[in-house]
Amino acid sequence: MRNLFDIDPWKIIESKFDPSKQKQAESIFSIGNGSFGQRANFEENYSGASLQGSYIGGVYYPDKTRVGWWKNGYPEYFAKVLNSTNWIGIDISIDGEHLDLNQQQIKHFHRELDMQNGLLKRSARVVFSNGKELEIESIRFCSMAREEIGAIAYSVTPLNFSGNVKFTPYLDGKVSNHDANYDEFFWVEDSRKVDLQKGILCTRTKKTDFCVATAMRFSFWREQELLTIHPNVAQRDFYVENNFEHYLEKGIRFTLKKYVAITSTINHSEFELVAKAIKRVREAYTTGFDALRSEHEAAWQAIWDSADISIEGDVASQQGIRFNIFHLYQTYTGKNAKLNIGPKGFTGEKYGGATYWDTEAYCLPFYLKTTDPKVARQLLVYRYNHLGRAIENAEKLGFKDGAALYPMVTMNGEECHNEWEITFEEIHRNGAISFGIYNYVRHTRDTDYLETYGLPVLAGIARFWAQRFNWSEAKKAYVMLGVTGPNEYENNVNNNWYTNYIARWCIAYCLEVNSKVSKGLVEKLAPREIEQFQHIVDNVYFPQIDGTNIYLQQDGFMDKEQLSASDIPVAERPINKHWSWDRILRSIFIKQADVLQGLYLFEDHFTEEVIRENFDFYEPKTVHESSLSPCVHVILAAKIKRLDKALELYLRTSRLDLDDYNHEADEGLHITSMAGTWMSVVEGLAGVRVYENGLAINPQIPKPWKSYAFQIRYQNQPLALAIDQQKVTITNLGSALVSCQLAGSQIDIEAGAMHEAAFEKFELS
Amino acid sequence: MRNLFDIDPWKIIESKFDPSKQKQAESIFSIGNGSFGQRANFEENYSGASLQGSYIGGVYYPDKTRVGWWKNGYPEYFAKVLNSTNWIGIDISIDGEHLDLNQQQIKHFHRELDMQNGLLKRSARVVFSNGKELEIESIRFCSMAREEIGAIAYSVTPLNFSGNVKFTPYLDGKVSNHDANYDEFFWVEDSRKVDLQKGILCTRTKKTDFCVATAMRFSFWREQELLTIHPNVAQRDFYVENNFEHYLEKGIRFTLKKYVAITSTINHSEFELVAKAIKRVREAYTTGFDALRSEHEAAWQAIWDSADISIEGDVASQQGIRFNIFHLYQTYTGKNAKLNIGPKGFTGEKYGGATYWDTEAYCLPFYLKTTDPKVARQLLVYRYNHLGRAIENAEKLGFKDGAALYPMVTMNGEECHNEWEITFEEIHRNGAISFGIYNYVRHTRDTDYLETYGLPVLAGIARFWAQRFNWSEAKKAYVMLGVTGPNEYENNVNNNWYTNYIARWCIAYCLEVNSKVSKGLVEKLAPREIEQFQHIVDNVYFPQIDGTNIYLQQDGFMDKEQLSASDIPVAERPINKHWSWDRILRSIFIKQADVLQGLYLFEDHFTEEVIRENFDFYEPKTVHESSLSPCVHVILAAKIKRLDKALELYLRTSRLDLDDYNHEADEGLHITSMAGTWMSVVEGLAGVRVYENGLAINPQIPKPWKSYAFQIRYQNQPLALAIDQQKVTITNLGSALVSCQLAGSQIDIEAGAMHEAAFEKFELS
Repeated sequence: MRNLFDIDPWKIIESKFDPSKQKQAESIFSIGNGSFGQRANFEENYSGASLQGSYIGGVYYPDKTRVGWWKNGYPEYFAKVLNSTNWIGIDISIDGEHLDLNQQQIKHFHRELDMQNGLLKRSARVVFSNGKELEIESIRFCSMAREEIGAIAYSVTPLNFSGNVKFTPYLDGKVSNHDANYDEFFWVEDSRKVDLQKGILCTRTKKTDFCVATAMRFSFWREQELLTIHPNVAQRDFYVENNFEHYLEKGIRFTLKKYVAITSTINHSEFELVAKAIKRVREAYTTGFDALRSEHEAAWQAIWDSADISIEGDVASQQGIRFNIFHLYQTYTGKNAKLNIGPKGFTGEKYGGATYWDTEAYCLPFYLKTTDPKVARQLLVYRYNHLGRAIENAEKLGFKDGAALYPMVTMNGEECHNEWEITFEEIHRNGAISFGIYNYVRHTRDTDYLETYGLPVLAGIARFWAQRFNWSEAKKAYVMLGVTGPNEYENNVNNNWYTNYIARWCIAYCLEVNSKVSKGLVEKLAPREIEQFQHIVDNVYFPQIDGTNIYLQQDGFMDKEQLSASDIPVAERPINKHWSWDRILRSIFIKQADVLQGLYLFEDHFTEEVIRENFDFYEPKTVHESSLSPCVHVILAAKIKRLDKALELYLRTSRLDLDDYNHEADEGLHITSMAGTWMSVVEGLAGVRVYENGLAINPQIPKPWKSYAFQIRYQNQPLALAIDQQKVTITNLGSALVSCQLAGSQIDIEAGAMHEAAFEKFELS
Repeated sequence: MRNLFDIDPWKIIESKFDPSKQKQAESIFSIGNGSFGQRANFEENYSGASLQGSYIGGVYYPDKTRVGWWKNGYPEYFAKVLNSTNWIGIDISIDGEHLDLNQQQIKHFHRELDMQNGLLKRSARVVFSNGKELEIESIRFCSMAREEIGAIAYSVTPLNFSGNVKFTPYLDGKVSNHDANYDEFFWVEDSRKVDLQKGILCTRTKKTDFCVATAMRFSFWREQELLTIHPNVAQRDFYVENNFEHYLEKGIRFTLKKYVAITSTINHSEFELVAKAIKRVREAYTTGFDALRSEHEAAWQAIWDSADISIEGDVASQQGIRFNIFHLYQTYTGKNAKLNIGPKGFTGEKYGGATYWDTEAYCLPFYLKTTDPKVARQLLVYRYNHLGRAIENAEKLGFKDGAALYPMVTMNGEECHNEWEITFEEIHRNGAISFGIYNYVRHTRDTDYLETYGLPVLAGIARFWAQRFNWSEAKKAYVMLGVTGPNEYENNVNNNWYTNYIARWCIAYCLEVNSKVSKGLVEKLAPREIEQFQHIVDNVYFPQIDGTNIYLQQDGFMDKEQLSASDIPVAERPINKHWSWDRILRSIFIKQADVLQGLYLFEDHFTEEVIRENFDFYEPKTVHESSLSPCVHVILAAKIKRLDKALELYLRTSRLDLDDYNHEADEGLHITSMAGTWMSVVEGLAGVRVYENGLAINPQIPKPWKSYAFQIRYQNQPLALAIDQQKVTITNLGSALVSCQLAGSQIDIEAGAMHEAAFEKFELS
């Protein structure tokens, strides 16, 4: 795979402008702050291929469902992440000719995503048709310190002339979703106002009535000197601007500093929305660009302090892992229980919705180990808040008595997705939500959570599974018919091992929690339910290959033609782009191996021998055409000491978007799978596990790496791990003693103490 | 079930106008002639709920596919049956007030479908707001003798006044499909011309460039006297009219006779289209209404002579069966190899497409036994002509080497349907096409057909099956994974017994035909293929319940909760309107029992005991929510002497649309299942079978019936059967001796001879 952009440990660098990469670059260089985000579109006019995108967390539109053949139970709409007011716009023109990197000759170009500091920087030298040369430079960020503030410093230096240049900072609310089922426009204008050096635009979504106020202010500088200017103002529907011409002297740098505040009814009442935006932007303006930037950079520094993974000896790996961590924190910071982690974050609009099972299965472990447990808890509370909707969702499908089915895709708890084989059948997602609670508790020991929020969710989910299993007289066991596992290259299968396994586990865990929580706080299971649940737990059917330890993905799996992914001609990969759906379904090939997913989640239930046997059976059949697939294989490969395989797949997952393996980075990034990449290192290579009975660490290091280091949180104590080719160093940065199993040996590390162990001293267990 | 309209052996009668039934009536009283057809819309203006519909065989529009989630292999478009120029329009007004049965007081109303003569008749007495009373009467037909001609005699009698009435006969091409994916308009206007007492409108479909010319002429009569009138002419886009006011004397009947010719590029070149329409309409005008009507009635008489089923003792049954036969012949007459039998015929536009597996599985046996074998042969040639497209269709799904997959829905051989579980998986349709050839040959002994047309189709289909089976190492047999059987309440199942059975049979039959046809005429199978085919035929896996004769619908069927349709609360029927798709899929309930479908098609492969055992297993689980379902059960129930069950289901199928069991007659009729109704009587009650080794007849008669009688064709000899409670009478109306098994005894009937057998003399075998 060729790298799309230049390699650097802390930066993504594009050193030559290539319009054919612009949409990919717009995704990859996106910036955001967990509250809103912006693709790396140019501030000035750009006439080339581009996906202009500005997205605000939680603001969505219920786009009317488009299906060929309606089926009972389909949702009426699909919640679309909304492309909203373009706040970055600064148009530049000379003698009526607009600056446009798709038109003018470009003598130099440099775009850089500074991940350490959360900055998008760009510089370019451009020759206008009349020969006038401009140097432009811009620095942009979405403030991590002030979640409603964005800021841009946009500098222009005339290189071979002195003369007038026109500046037009504007706000444009006339933006459409690329992803709209019937090409509808989703916004109405509520109000707009424009005045000298400021303007505000307030737009409202149709149907959902979300209001978004975007306020701008700007200042204009000659080098370090603030200038007084007298701009014109202009406005039209969905649009406000200032514009002014200024005489620029050759070689002198003039800078327009644009401050924007974006407030929405996600966080404010409709009545105070505009006032808040005006207040926030005034504060930002008063604070000034440099001070805003400093506090923003400090906020990023605090994130990196606990979340960074440093890798020495392989810059591509280093860049890859930081790219993933960076985008995760840009997408979700845990500040707001109404938000979640959309599959494309703020980098694109494809797929819609904000919440998939990816959150619990992939993102939660990341936040649990890299930051304050409150962040992970927010993610759990989000689902607790949607419990009523999950119960309604199950009722629509014919379930009753409080059974809860969480949606495949949602914005507000309601199901959006509308393919029967996914919407109605890919129900394993429910299991991930119970598992998330369990995982949270084993990391944090916050059992209080179970009392108030945990048990109702666990019970709703367990009730769903209890109704979804049915007794098979033929098998004298509980079976589960008609499901789609995480491997979406199979639909409507019976007894998907993963789904049966996690479903049974959910019921068992619910029984366990129910027996432990004190009476009174929440409604507990009825005795009749307890009995029924226990009967199911004791009698679930699991398909397996006779005489082996291999769990069968589903009934009938062995009837398929037994091939390996290596049998597929290279020209036919990925198969989802080359084969008919029919052929994919019938083939043995696996998008994402769900038996292995189960062995990963419940690793402590299985011996290493069982894991190895299943890995050797499923990994050759897996084509990894889900971005969520490789990381699980990295972790299991590392577990069974296949370090070369682990590294190979690690590189694929960590640079999936950076090197655009799947040819779709133009549409946005695979945000949730980025958490899987992080797991690949921490759980895979470093072998960090939080089991119910404690922390275990079984580190390894790939040969090409000199060393790698990161921190984890365990029971709210930060631990720093550093692994090089010779040794492992664990430092307890917390305030309490931490015990763990290091390569099978119990060790205790006092607060502030460091434990060092040489590799030669221990055998990996 | 309450009857929607009045009962009569030869007529459907509506004796009181009920606007809430208008759309149902428009479907049920539809008329057509195999070439074009027209819903029973009123000629005059009608402002109530109505589905205006005029359809021309073979003229379609490729409507852009609408899907939520695209899958590789989906077709780009869905061919829509096109609603085309409204040719019946005759507007009537008095003093500016339009005649409109939705507005004026109606003193009397009578609408009648005269099935014997193929006439739609209507009379009404209407009071205008000024108190003026009009009697109107209309008679309309689509000529069975001239396939491009429609005619209307529209009479008006002023009952309580003399005065001016305005007549406006018109053609209106501005018609839209109700069933359009994106509300597009499908037509452009090519040309129009209007002159005294005539007009022509030529419209063209977008994309497909079908041209349709509709020409009208009319005359105006005072009782039997032709009047000279001086109409005005008017036109606008897509519209031409004449209009004139005439002074009508009280009590005198004035009649406007409107003649219409409809020509299309299905049958004519674009250059002669208009001239042909003008010529045809001139001929019709010259022939005159009464003579046109006589030749039309004679053509219907000829159809009834051989295709009628008369039932004495149960008028509802009698009306039901004639209604079915009537609509079948209105839809398809076999005159044109480009046409086929759409699921709604010319009575509505839902589902689109013209050709489903219904044609071979249901309609072909009807035409084989009721008319000249040329008609059935046309249907086979239609598929032969589409073989190239079927091969392309299979290639799109990844098949090769001449494998052919006929489409689920088509107009021109290309697949239209776009649900993966149907389009890619409901492949049993391919089997019906081979079976149709086999069935044709055993009825007609026309083995020549195999030489030229048969083998290439059989080979393409056999190649498909050979590739679609795969060897299961686990089962040491050929299995077929991921199919949908005729029971569409299961999707993506493995080893659907019906599909496996018909697929193996197709390969075996292809081998048999291949070994028999002479060398040279068509390309025969390669030796390697023969060997491979034989290996498959010898080693197909069939699921079965151990220790029984019950063939399992599919792998895993016994894991379902074992319930009966009687366990479903009445309020939840039909389940497809009340249950989520998910719940339907997981349930045991069967839309249409496909094991029984297989036992029906291949009845001579199984003992009666096997059929009984399977019927008793599947019938209680079948909810008959496909219109194609009950007839098969009637036939099998009769076979195993469950005559009460047979009669119960016969009544349901024969009056499905007449009594609107499924609450969807407003959208059009279930044309193809009507052939199943015919089969219910002939193959079910009368026990007529054409096996490979000859004709067998095992008649029974339900207790409520006095007698029933019909004709069949067998080896091109017409036989008349009459069955009463005492005896069976078989008359050989042909010119050659016919041998058959009557209730197990071999009998020979000379040409012209009659054979009578008393029921008491024979035991039904």
